[in-house]
Amino acid sequence: MAIQVTILGANSAIPTATRFPTSQVIDINQSRYLIDCGEGTQMQLRRHRVRLQRIKAIFISHLHGDHYFGLIGLINTMHMLGRQTELDIFGPPDLKQVLDLQLKLADTKLSYKWNFHPLNFGEPEVIYEDTGVTASTIPLDHRIDCNGFLFQENKKKRKIRRELIPELNIPVEQFQNIKAGADFVDDKGVLHPNSTITEDPKPSYSYAYCSDTKYNESIVEVVKGADLLYHEATFLEDMIKRAEFTHHSTAKQAATIAKMAEVGQLAIGHYSARYTDFSDHLKEAKAVFENTQLATEGKVFSLPRVKPKKKEVE
Amino acid sequence: MAIQVTILGANSAIPTATRFPTSQVIDINQSRYLIDCGEGTQMQLRRHRVRLQRIKAIFISHLHGDHYFGLIGLINTMHMLGRQTELDIFGPPDLKQVLDLQLKLADTKLSYKWNFHPLNFGEPEVIYEDTGVTASTIPLDHRIDCNGFLFQENKKKRKIRRELIPELNIPVEQFQNIKAGADFVDDKGVLHPNSTITEDPKPSYSYAYCSDTKYNESIVEVVKGADLLYHEATFLEDMIKRAEFTHHSTAKQAATIAKMAEVGQLAIGHYSARYTDFSDHLKEAKAVFENTQLATEGKVFSLPRVKPKKKEVE
Repeated sequence: MAIQVTILGANSAIPTATRFPTSQVIDINQSRYLIDCGEGTQMQLRRHRVRLQRIKAIFISHLHGDHYFGLIGLINTMHMLGRQTELDIFGPPDLKQVLDLQLKLADTKLSYKWNFHPLNFGEPEVIYEDTGVTASTIPLDHRIDCNGFLFQENKKKRKIRRELIPELNIPVEQFQNIKAGADFVDDKGVLHPNSTITEDPKPSYSYAYCSDTKYNESIVEVVKGADLLYHEATFLEDMIKRAEFTHHSTAKQAATIAKMAEVGQLAIGHYSARYTDFSDHLKEAKAVFENTQLATEGKVFSLPRVKPKKKEVE
Repeated sequence: MAIQVTILGANSAIPTATRFPTSQVIDINQSRYLIDCGEGTQMQLRRHRVRLQRIKAIFISHLHGDHYFGLIGLINTMHMLGRQTELDIFGPPDLKQVLDLQLKLADTKLSYKWNFHPLNFGEPEVIYEDTGVTASTIPLDHRIDCNGFLFQENKKKRKIRRELIPELNIPVEQFQNIKAGADFVDDKGVLHPNSTITEDPKPSYSYAYCSDTKYNESIVEVVKGADLLYHEATFLEDMIKRAEFTHHSTAKQAATIAKMAEVGQLAIGHYSARYTDFSDHLKEAKAVFENTQLATEGKVFSLPRVKPKKKEVE
């Protein structure tokens, strides 16, 4: 599949014996990225059999502990396992101070190069690009500076109709141009418009991650039409005042954003530790936006959607 | 019992999906103390049903992550659960910087007062005293500054022979003096020597915690005669060079220290992640010091020793 999101932890501030704080691993066309890294994330990665060293980049939304206290342990373990590959870390500027200090006090010089990318807040910005994906920030409204992240698969190239390659004698060196949209002139000087010799590429998907935030309609425009939106839903609707006060959202508010943004699917998580059952979260959200699912620990979301496999309980 | 030590985590540097880094909770006459606090300790405390808020003081041996990366999460959770009781934290001086910085960046002012006690290195020092226990440092030899901790139950008071209280008409206001060793003169002017009206107190026990350290005979004098010694045993004897190089110990070295110090029992832990079975650690240690046990996760050690209960597998 194009994008796969695995929920490593979905609890808000206070972890319990069996519920870990926020972290998600995203697989986009075989590349791995980590979003947030609460305490215990490295154990959760192992539990879900994600190879730590395959993670290319880590994105930290904000400096509340349930979103980053596991980061120093993870990068330290990558070092102890002898990582050589560079690692990109994106997060609030002050995060670097914390990591630098803890590495210095342990007298640790990491075995690999890490590139820290301090993020701005307030306006959406493209922060990362590789061959498969472009990531940008989603400004959120929390008690301290906080960004969500939008991952968009890059537009894929058109596919040359295989049977025409020998028929029209298309030379290999023309393949890239044609995939990029160029027409082709054959040996006899006949022009073949691109549309006649290629097929549409596979669709590109997008995933928007929004945690933590109070209800904030300015998110809508940024995540408009995303195939999958994760939106925090710390509380039920009867605690809307508490949500407002703590700069969090209710399940209904998350669904309202999903509906306004006309996303494909909504995943809700970051549950307050006061709840032991999330069926009311789901009910309240579904009343507003039907295509909602709980982002509980271990859950895997796939784009395009596939039929349930082992771990998936769609 | 007088002292109870519960092993919350016993792995060295690299945690795995099921093995947590170092932390131990000690119960001494109903008071709780925590030694070291690797990542995930707060989840382990909950798993072992230890109430976080009952912990009076935390002792951190050194600033390698597997011994303290869980501390900021734990003190943060204590805050979020509304702790009011003061908390004492003992550790290397620089530890305060890390905690201060992380609290500042999260804009968190803890709900309780925490008293940070920076420790010295090099000489054993008494660092903590309350009505039940006296704790002192055990200087260790590791790659960075590191202390072990010796917990000694305070000498208990003598017990007045109950049947003599009415017989000799001993007034309540004399009880404390007599328990402290005073003689008693009754209404008729007869002197009753303390030894005739009291019984010996219950014995006082001691627990010595030594992690992390290379083989270091100067420990022997400090832990001499301890009822229970925990000594790290990261490696087996065939990796003695690696132990020396990384400033760790082998199981046999741990046992040698136990034997020289004539302790009551030895517990070994802090196993390298390369081992999945610790029976060879036990075998190598027992060959030198028979009364050795593995300090695996969840194991409970009691002083005085009691017959196995639910969780104990002595």
